[in-house]
Parts: sequence; C-alpha cells; structure tokens
Amino acid sequence: MDWKSEILAARDRIAGHAQITPVMQSNALGYPLELKLEHMQHTGSFKARGAFNTLLSMDVPSAGVVAASGGNHGAAAAYAAHALGHPAKIFVPELAGPSKISLIERIGADLSVVPGEYANALTMAQAHEAESGAMQIHAYDAPATVAGQGTCFAEWDAQGLQADTVLVAVGGGGLIAGALAWFQGARKVVAVEPETSCALNAALAEGEPVDVSVSGIAANALGARRIGDICFGLAQGMTSVLVPDEAIAQAQQTLWQAHRILVEPAGAAAMAALISGAYQPEPDERVAVLICGGNIAPDPLAD
Amino acid sequence: MDWKSEILAARDRIAGHAQITPVMQSNALGYPLELKLEHMQHTGSFKARGAFNTLLSMDVPSAGVVAASGGNHGAAAAYAAHALGHPAKIFVPELAGPSKISLIERIGADLSVVPGEYANALTMAQAHEAESGAMQIHAYDAPATVAGQGTCFAEWDAQGLQADTVLVAVGGGGLIAGALAWFQGARKVVAVEPETSCALNAALAEGEPVDVSVSGIAANALGARRIGDICFGLAQGMTSVLVPDEAIAQAQQTLWQAHRILVEPAGAAAMAALISGAYQPEPDERVAVLICGGNIAPDPLAD
Repeated sequence: MDWKSEILAARDRIAGHAQITPVMQSNALGYPLELKLEHMQHTGSFKARGAFNTLLSMDVPSAGVVAASGGNHGAAAAYAAHALGHPAKIFVPELAGPSKISLIERIGADLSVVPGEYANALTMAQAHEAESGAMQIHAYDAPATVAGQGTCFAEWDAQGLQADTVLVAVGGGGLIAGALAWFQGARKVVAVEPETSCALNAALAEGEPVDVSVSGIAANALGARRIGDICFGLAQGMTSVLVPDEAIAQAQQTLWQAHRILVEPAGAAAMAALISGAYQPEPDERVAVLICGGNIAPDPLAD
Repeated sequence: MDWKSEILAARDRIAGHAQITPVMQSNALGYPLELKLEHMQHTGSFKARGAFNTLLSMDVPSAGVVAASGGNHGAAAAYAAHALGHPAKIFVPELAGPSKISLIERIGADLSVVPGEYANALTMAQAHEAESGAMQIHAYDAPATVAGQGTCFAEWDAQGLQADTVLVAVGGGGLIAGALAWFQGARKVVAVEPETSCALNAALAEGEPVDVSVSGIAANALGARRIGDICFGLAQGMTSVLVPDEAIAQAQQTLWQAHRILVEPAGAAAMAALISGAYQPEPDERVAVLICGGNIAPDPLAD
C-alpha cells in the first residue's frame, strides 16, 4: 500500500472536520522536547482522525454507525457520525464509568449503557449491526483508520517538526502504525507501552501477534489484548519500550505542573519513557513526544 | 514612552526564559476563533513574562526579591527569581488555599504562610523589604511589568494572528495594558471583567481610577481593587464589557469539553464575553481570545 498517498488523501478528506492540534517546545525534562497536543483533538484523542477518514471514504449505510466502546474510540465514532449527519448507536459498558459515559452522551449519540463489561457491549453492538445494517468503524486495524491517524504526523511535519525521534504510546497500534506509515524511516519512531499492557512488545518478541493480559492505570485506553495486523506488519525492527505505571503517573504530574496539560494516563505514557529512562536519547538526539489522550477520570469540572 | 521598542526589548530579554505558548484555531462557539494558550506559560499564567522582564532589566539586590501573593503573581515572581538565581521570599496569605500554596512551594521559594488575608501578608512583605533591601516586582502597574506582558501579543503576531479583535481579561490591568501598548490600535482590544470585579470598567465610567469592591469566582486572580495608572492611561476610549460568573463557569466547561483546556475562572473570562453576548462580534469580524491563567483549585492531580 502507498501509505504516503493514503495519508495525504486522508488529510485532505478530514480537513475542516478534525482539529489542527497545537505543537510546542517544552523544557519540562531539562532538555528541549517537541510536543504535539493531540489530546486537544475533538473528543480528546487522536481517534477522531481515523473516524472521520473512515466515514468520509466509505458509503455509510442509512442505518449509520455502530460502536461498542466506553472509551476514546466510541466517543470519536459518535462525534464524527454526528458531525457528518449519520446516526450513531454506541453501546457502552457500565464499567466505563460516569465520566466517559457522559462524554459520549454530550456528543448526542444514541447511547445504550450495557450492564457489565466490554464483551457484553460488543455482543449488543454486533446484534445491532446484523439487524440494522449499521457499519462499524474499526478502532485500529483497518487501512482507513491507520491513514486517518497518520494525518497527525503529516500535520506535525507541516508544523515544523525537527525531531530525529518521535515517541508514541501504543494500544491496539492504530496511531503508531500511522506514524510508521507516514515517516517511512525518515524519523525514528519509538513505541511506548505500559509494562502491564504490551501487545506490540509481546508480538515483536514472539514474532507474531499474541494475546496478552492487560491491566494498569492506562488499560482503559491502551489495553488492547492483541496488536493489530497492520501495525505488526509496519513495526518490524522498530524500537519498543515498556514503562511502569509509576512513571506514567509522574509524567501526568510533569505535564500538569510544567505546562497545565491535563491528560489521562495513556496521554502521558510516551513521555513516561523519557522519565523512567526506558528510552534514553543520545546527547545530540532531538526528541518529540505525542500527547495523545486527555479524557481523564473523574472529569475535573464535573458538578 | 515608546512601548513598541520597550516590548521588543523585553521580548529579546526574556527569550529562552519565558515559554513560547501555543496558538490554535477553535470552532467551539460555532465560528472561527483564534486562541492563545497563555495558561501554559511557566507557573500557569502570563505573569512570568513581566517577572522575567523586571528581573532582567534591573539590578537585583543581593537580598533578592520579595512578594506578597498567594496567587499567580507570587508564583511568577518566585519562578523567575529561582530561574535567574536570585533569592525569593514570598509571603502567602493562609486564605490562598493549599493548591496555590503548594504551587509556590514546588518552585522552591522561601515561603511564609501568614495567618489571615492578603493585607497581613503585604504587611509582612513590606517589613521584609525594609529590613533586607529585597526588591518587589510590581504585579501590574510598572513599565517593566507591562512591557513584559506585552511580549505575549508580540509573540502572537509573530505566530500569525489574523484577528480584527482580541479579547483579554482584566484584573489590575497589566496584561491588557501590554495588549494596548503593543497593538497601538492596529487591532481592537476588548477588556473583559467580571461584573463583581470591574476596576477598569468603573474607572472608565468615573473618568479616573476608583476603588471597587471585588468578589466572585475569578476574584483571586482578577480582583484588583483599583486599576493601574499605566493601564488607565492606555485604556481611554476602549471597549470594556462585564460578564457574570455563570458565563465564566460556562466558558470553563466549553474550553474543557471542546479542547481539553482546563483553566481557572480568570483564564476563561475573556471567552465568557462571547458566550454571554457581552461582546457580540460583527458577522465578518475575526475574533481572538487570550486564555491567560490555568491555576485551577483544587489541583486536579492532587493526591
């Protein structure tokens, strides 16, 4: 696949729909660091890019869109569908908690809160898909999703990114696949996963995608049980590092104290690799960190 | 005074010390709006600019710096002094609350928590000044402070500001004086104050600075009892509007929900003027809002 062309086409497609997110220079760790504030994307994560690209590049049935998610993917799917005038039916597991549920509620989607955990919501969503003909937007392992997430890095290049190395947090692998697909080796991409949710790291070690168990403070956003095939294909030979939850929490504190950037654990995970030393840049290496998600719970402004 | 030259000199002076804060396009209110995220400045407000410019343009005594403030000014004075290697003694009123006190504590200043309110802390600070020879950094009504705050707008112009009109929140008037001093009529500047803390609005109505009573949700940052003379001199004939606390709270919600920008009430006050209709742009008028302070209480990441 000609990923560069796909990503440039996605960029043109989603222009005016996705937010152009700001970039900044940080000295929070005592050396120059470029940040892209992608947690300021619509619905608080990069996932709006892939959702818009998917809906704008396919024929959406009149039944609209369905997703099972109490997290960033569900919010992005609902937002993109709503913005483009398609119905959206979102099945949210009760366990997602009030903060994420009210996030999706505010977007205006038709929301069903399903008792129990994610698997129950998925069952309901699949039944709805079969019955109504609504389409699913894949959270990470589809070309239109990966190309959409890749626009984040095309945009960063256009904003003057200087770094030799870009650190990106990994869940199911859609975002980092977009980074690898865009940079094509022109910049080094480092995959950062929590020690307790490391589907990519495990796949690289085993030579194929394998199921992993997931837990920890970033699990509701980075806790994919298996890395996507597209990501795995692009990730061969890349640098993959793991971070403990303590470093993620410390990165959240650093971003807040230095820059008043308030993010969920997943959004701080890439920076945690620099704090923990899981990734140690060379003295002259210019480093950039993508801040990818801001949907912290509890909502700091909840009544 | 040749304010443009003063501000350009301040810009060169504080380069590498103050944070270059990001800008972005927002559609949160349904029409294009330029935002500058000055709440991401060091210590969470624009005040670091004036503090750095003051310390870098004057001979700082060996006794260093003294300030009475439990708020953004105290944090900025402490930060700039610490960064430049000067001692800083900050007297904080107990009423400032644990969130602002720990903000100043983290910077590493010599901090005295004074029982009671601001006046008590000021008395202690004045005694310290007389005794030690330490210098005060004026919070808003000194040329070096105003020129420092003006660098925020010089920076915004260099970042490609397009707006016809820039909305700025007003407390003692240092920031808006910097805006007026920089733009010199090239862009319209709109002063936004809370209905219950409106020292500039009252001064413009009375024809001279007058004492006002202050209260409301933004009072700990915007609650100056009297507008600064420099600001009053620059503000003749300008547009001044007032916003109710409800609109300020709504602007905080809008910034968080649309962009994951979490700010204190003062930081959202300028946007509140658009939400409340206190300022109604013409159909073709391009509008920009300065987001000026992020030190929300309680600290959302406090243990």
